[in-house]
Amino acid sequence: MEIEAIDFFYLAMPEILDIGDGSQDALLVRVRAGGYEGWGECEASPLVSIASLVCPMSHSACKPVQASVLGQKLTTPQDIQRIGDLVRANSLDLLQADHTLSGIDIAMWDLLGKRYQVPVYQLLGYKQAFPKTPYASVLFGNTPQETWEKARRIRSLGYRAAKFGWGPFGKNLQDDCDHIAAAREGLGTDGILLIDAGTIWKDNVAQAAERIPTLQEHRVTWMEEPFVSGALEAYRQLAALAEPVKLAGGEGSHNYYMAKQMIDYAGIGFIQIDAGRIGGISPAKQVATYAQGKGVLYVNHTFTSHLALSASLQPYAGLEDAVLCEYPIEAKPLAVEMTKEHLLPDENGQIHLPEAPGLGVTPNLEALSKYLVEVEIRVQGKLLYSTPPLG
Amino acid sequence: MEIEAIDFFYLAMPEILDIGDGSQDALLVRVRAGGYEGWGECEASPLVSIASLVCPMSHSACKPVQASVLGQKLTTPQDIQRIGDLVRANSLDLLQADHTLSGIDIAMWDLLGKRYQVPVYQLLGYKQAFPKTPYASVLFGNTPQETWEKARRIRSLGYRAAKFGWGPFGKNLQDDCDHIAAAREGLGTDGILLIDAGTIWKDNVAQAAERIPTLQEHRVTWMEEPFVSGALEAYRQLAALAEPVKLAGGEGSHNYYMAKQMIDYAGIGFIQIDAGRIGGISPAKQVATYAQGKGVLYVNHTFTSHLALSASLQPYAGLEDAVLCEYPIEAKPLAVEMTKEHLLPDENGQIHLPEAPGLGVTPNLEALSKYLVEVEIRVQGKLLYSTPPLG
Repeated sequence: MEIEAIDFFYLAMPEILDIGDGSQDALLVRVRAGGYEGWGECEASPLVSIASLVCPMSHSACKPVQASVLGQKLTTPQDIQRIGDLVRANSLDLLQADHTLSGIDIAMWDLLGKRYQVPVYQLLGYKQAFPKTPYASVLFGNTPQETWEKARRIRSLGYRAAKFGWGPFGKNLQDDCDHIAAAREGLGTDGILLIDAGTIWKDNVAQAAERIPTLQEHRVTWMEEPFVSGALEAYRQLAALAEPVKLAGGEGSHNYYMAKQMIDYAGIGFIQIDAGRIGGISPAKQVATYAQGKGVLYVNHTFTSHLALSASLQPYAGLEDAVLCEYPIEAKPLAVEMTKEHLLPDENGQIHLPEAPGLGVTPNLEALSKYLVEVEIRVQGKLLYSTPPLG
Repeated sequence: MEIEAIDFFYLAMPEILDIGDGSQDALLVRVRAGGYEGWGECEASPLVSIASLVCPMSHSACKPVQASVLGQKLTTPQDIQRIGDLVRANSLDLLQADHTLSGIDIAMWDLLGKRYQVPVYQLLGYKQAFPKTPYASVLFGNTPQETWEKARRIRSLGYRAAKFGWGPFGKNLQDDCDHIAAAREGLGTDGILLIDAGTIWKDNVAQAAERIPTLQEHRVTWMEEPFVSGALEAYRQLAALAEPVKLAGGEGSHNYYMAKQMIDYAGIGFIQIDAGRIGGISPAKQVATYAQGKGVLYVNHTFTSHLALSASLQPYAGLEDAVLCEYPIEAKPLAVEMTKEHLLPDENGQIHLPEAPGLGVTPNLEALSKYLVEVEIRVQGKLLYSTPPLG
């Protein structure tokens, strides 16, 4: 069977707030082949990824993403790898392409899972999907008091782990220490506490290092993204200072190599991969395998829908040691209504991947229609893209 | 003075061929502030970079590029750095942003050069611009005979150095050896011969290594991009095998850190930076300074116009040891007609940066009007972009 259609749907909340909440819009992807359809999601600027799907060719290594996907044979997982390699070669100089490919790759895995009636993790070679311990992923409160209240609420909802990030964090040392202390107090002494600095110190080791005593005192398991993804040497220096607190990072990786470099050179304890950014489930699985061999724990990065959550859990479903998973609990209605099914904690607070074919999570098209954003792109008068009907 | 306008102009040849020639289209950038204007160029998919300039915000770290530029104070080089940092933070999750920023950063340097009536290299802190030895940069011929003829022609034009790349190279060992031998024969024994593999072996060290004896026999100065930019370990392994042939790479770097990593971990002898991709002249200068400290030679990457050429030479103008410069000699009419001024070799075959203010190269708007591509982008019925008048 061959790929007959790729459809991109830009969805957005009526109002987008200037906060670090990535669940306010979404780019939903549908791939059709041989009577089957698969769904995926790009963690990307929707308009920009739409443009990269349909843009005119600039030269042989700067082609629109669809040029390497439409009409391709899609019968086996090897075809997905081959199509991904084609996109990476033919769109080598199109920077946005990795984010755009991500949703397409995810949709192709979903499609093949439905074709063969197996969950994606089995197509990836895993015999079983181990349960994961979700950490409730939230923004810091505006004040330490708000952070404390958020932590209390998370604990009362039954979560054993929580991550606080972005918001006011990183600008003032005393404020940061107060927020960390408040989070620990609210979560209780036995909770797993994670802190996300949101790249706030860019590559400044000294600024980040000032927080280490407080992180150690409050037994923070990891500090995430003190620096931008590429600042490997800054990560390595801070990692040596921070023990036993580990560093986490990698969500900015938009290909396998960037994640490999963090594992090889940055001294991190946790590698965080968003399947919606790194080029899809295929390179994410490659990272999971590499990380395991290097003693670095793989964790998903997901702050949006349960379609994205299922996609981001598949690559390390079979790794029993990698027990934590990011679990968004403050997602906007768009992200919640995105899917008919949800991956809810069981009675022990654990998250399980669906055993249904593909991703086991399907978009709720009727609910989504109210979020659909109409886009039109014309070049030399020719309509290259207009939002397709959702359904 | 404040930035009042950013205008993007998509220019293209009437027909785009499926070959590795990046001069077939262009994204010209104009920035206006305080009665001055500066010009730059993105080495990027024009439509995708236009979309990233104007797209709706997704969240606080995924904003359109223009949100961090319009209205900003622009009076000193420090303002350019500050604006670049703003774009990188506010568009952290917008992958295309680095390519888009590149043309804006270049235009800001050009503007400040005009404001202060000095060439950009002086604003960068260099006292003088040393002449560079241009290497004629061309695609391989379709046959070794064609490659030989291209090499002969380059030599007859007075170039002492030539680079052959892309085309049929990398697929068959014997063909590659024949092309390399033909290039050396055509260029003469004393010519500087460079080979560009165009990332053809992705990260396969063994395939690349098969070419080493031929590269050594024909005294090739560097082999460029045997692998994709991120494959640092593959580079390092090949570099150890290839001596005295050096490896060159880095054109894919879209920020300072990616180039730093190649210098730190890939064992390259030459770092090649395209100011139109890495985020502009600012991060390119940062790489040039870092490379010099590490004993790695900086070279520009330029395959398009002389506006792009001037921009890509400024960052290492003052480094006397870094003598080579890429010089496109097969550019399409669009790229040639792009500028009123051209950086032509002097009687000794050397290239000099203009001493005129800014980049010293100005776009020929009348000649370009026939290449202007009309673009319209609408979101929810609202016109976010339409091609502005050129002039």
